[in-house]
Amino acid sequence: MERKKVVAGVDIGGTNTIIGFVDRDGNIVMEDRLKTNHYPVFEEYVAALYEKIESNFKKAEADIDLIGIGIGAPMGNINKGTIEYPADLPWKGIMPLSDIMQKHTTLPVIVTNDANAAAVGEMIYGGAKGMRDFVVITLGTGLGSGFVVDGKLVYGHDGFAGEIGHTSIRPGSSNRDCGCGKKGCIETYASATGLKRTLLKVMADSIAPSPLRKLSFEELDAKIIHDAALQGDRIAIEAFEHTGMMLGFKLADVVALTNPEAIFLFGGLALAKDLIFEPTKRYMEENLLYIYRGKVKLLESNLSTQNAAVLGASSLIWSVKEQQ
Amino acid sequence: MERKKVVAGVDIGGTNTIIGFVDRDGNIVMEDRLKTNHYPVFEEYVAALYEKIESNFKKAEADIDLIGIGIGAPMGNINKGTIEYPADLPWKGIMPLSDIMQKHTTLPVIVTNDANAAAVGEMIYGGAKGMRDFVVITLGTGLGSGFVVDGKLVYGHDGFAGEIGHTSIRPGSSNRDCGCGKKGCIETYASATGLKRTLLKVMADSIAPSPLRKLSFEELDAKIIHDAALQGDRIAIEAFEHTGMMLGFKLADVVALTNPEAIFLFGGLALAKDLIFEPTKRYMEENLLYIYRGKVKLLESNLSTQNAAVLGASSLIWSVKEQQ
Repeated sequence: MERKKVVAGVDIGGTNTIIGFVDRDGNIVMEDRLKTNHYPVFEEYVAALYEKIESNFKKAEADIDLIGIGIGAPMGNINKGTIEYPADLPWKGIMPLSDIMQKHTTLPVIVTNDANAAAVGEMIYGGAKGMRDFVVITLGTGLGSGFVVDGKLVYGHDGFAGEIGHTSIRPGSSNRDCGCGKKGCIETYASATGLKRTLLKVMADSIAPSPLRKLSFEELDAKIIHDAALQGDRIAIEAFEHTGMMLGFKLADVVALTNPEAIFLFGGLALAKDLIFEPTKRYMEENLLYIYRGKVKLLESNLSTQNAAVLGASSLIWSVKEQQ
Repeated sequence: MERKKVVAGVDIGGTNTIIGFVDRDGNIVMEDRLKTNHYPVFEEYVAALYEKIESNFKKAEADIDLIGIGIGAPMGNINKGTIEYPADLPWKGIMPLSDIMQKHTTLPVIVTNDANAAAVGEMIYGGAKGMRDFVVITLGTGLGSGFVVDGKLVYGHDGFAGEIGHTSIRPGSSNRDCGCGKKGCIETYASATGLKRTLLKVMADSIAPSPLRKLSFEELDAKIIHDAALQGDRIAIEAFEHTGMMLGFKLADVVALTNPEAIFLFGGLALAKDLIFEPTKRYMEENLLYIYRGKVKLLESNLSTQNAAVLGASSLIWSVKEQQ
């Protein structure tokens, strides 16, 4: 019997690293994990990661054929195979992840960031199958994006394309502080954290009663605001409306620059469905040049939030193999 | 002797259509023209255009080999070979330019808009030779753009990518009216017309004396404001500063989305050199995420403004031939 071809998809997070062997249909045939923060020395981390991949492969060698390793990491750079100045990982500076991994293996290794991986994952396993031009927006703690143009992920000259989360909503500096050091970045509005910040703003401006007034900023999260909005809480609904306004405004820019067939929303905030999709779509259309109106689909991601990072990371290898 | 390969580059404007035969090095070996507005029936216009190309080719047939026809037109759509709802041409609706032209000839015909043509022209003949990722911004009456990603022009799903001129500078509708029907589009600020509008705003806010106060809005143009700024006119200098602020702000978005190696400024307003480049660069850098700072070149176009439209249109054919 022919052995099943699989890719190792690796999702590097600040606490855990998740490893999955994924087949061409997006089935995860093996999953394992590693404590990222147990390895303060980067070389030792990579050795341990490779050891995990190899030991799992050895167990299943009779059945599977491992064809490559796709890795998603914050500030992962696809051109250089590096992780560069990540805020939430235990290592500092520029880590040559791909080069170090290639000391252990001759398999192809591809490194990129989470949002780029999500975009390729959507193309290989998800709702963007067969699409040539689309964008994936990840709405989590921050806002990430991955652009696919003519069937290929846009890397950019330095490998850092797609950082739409750090474009500003207006000129001038009277806006919200962003963790990146700038002000007014769209991710300070359109993200789980942005929704909380907007909720406080709405609460400050409004006199409407709301059970959310009993919760501190730190107690609040997107899920609580979502549940309140479903109960008809006017402040929560207004916070979603404002979040959609900001996101829709920016997505109109995305359309004007790259004219995609569809924009996929992915991640925690996208789970609020109509509460976020309806205002986002409405404000996007309002800001579109007439030639684009009514033409660009705003869709939910087809990747489950739970496995998306591993699926996305693994998809990079399939994508490259199929373009060869 | 081998005949020299040339492409027919066609620039369709509201009054004149300019036709040039262009060799691979960007030399225009023949130039002719046609009155666009003498042909209210589109089919008759295309027949006359083809006749011009053919008669010029016949004259030089012993020396040249015509390998294709590249056409730049307002609202030219590269996917469909159409001109769609142009504001400044004598015909209405959707004109299937490529299809009608192909009734006259078996040569390849490519249609696109002026800014996309300028981008490909920069890559084939100009300063972007050898670059894989760059953007050309055309600053004329309006603001156009063409994006090149991984060596290829970005068309988008509907063939209308690159309309950055109609992205807005901030959410909400308290901004300048744009000819497209929206408000606050960047081309109402960063263009020759935008500069005039900004000059009036600065003049209204300031009490500084200026000879420009003697001129009406209709008498003013970018050249007059440019000359005044060179003479030290404070109002003119402030208008350029503000124009650069708006343009730099938007270019930071361009960098975050596509991470280009360089951005080329092209067209009348770019001729103001430092007056526009210096503030644009400064505000672009100020709005960039740290990973991009100091890395993206802001360059003058290498194509002469006079011939750029014909060169750009012709370059489409070389570009496609060389990717085959």
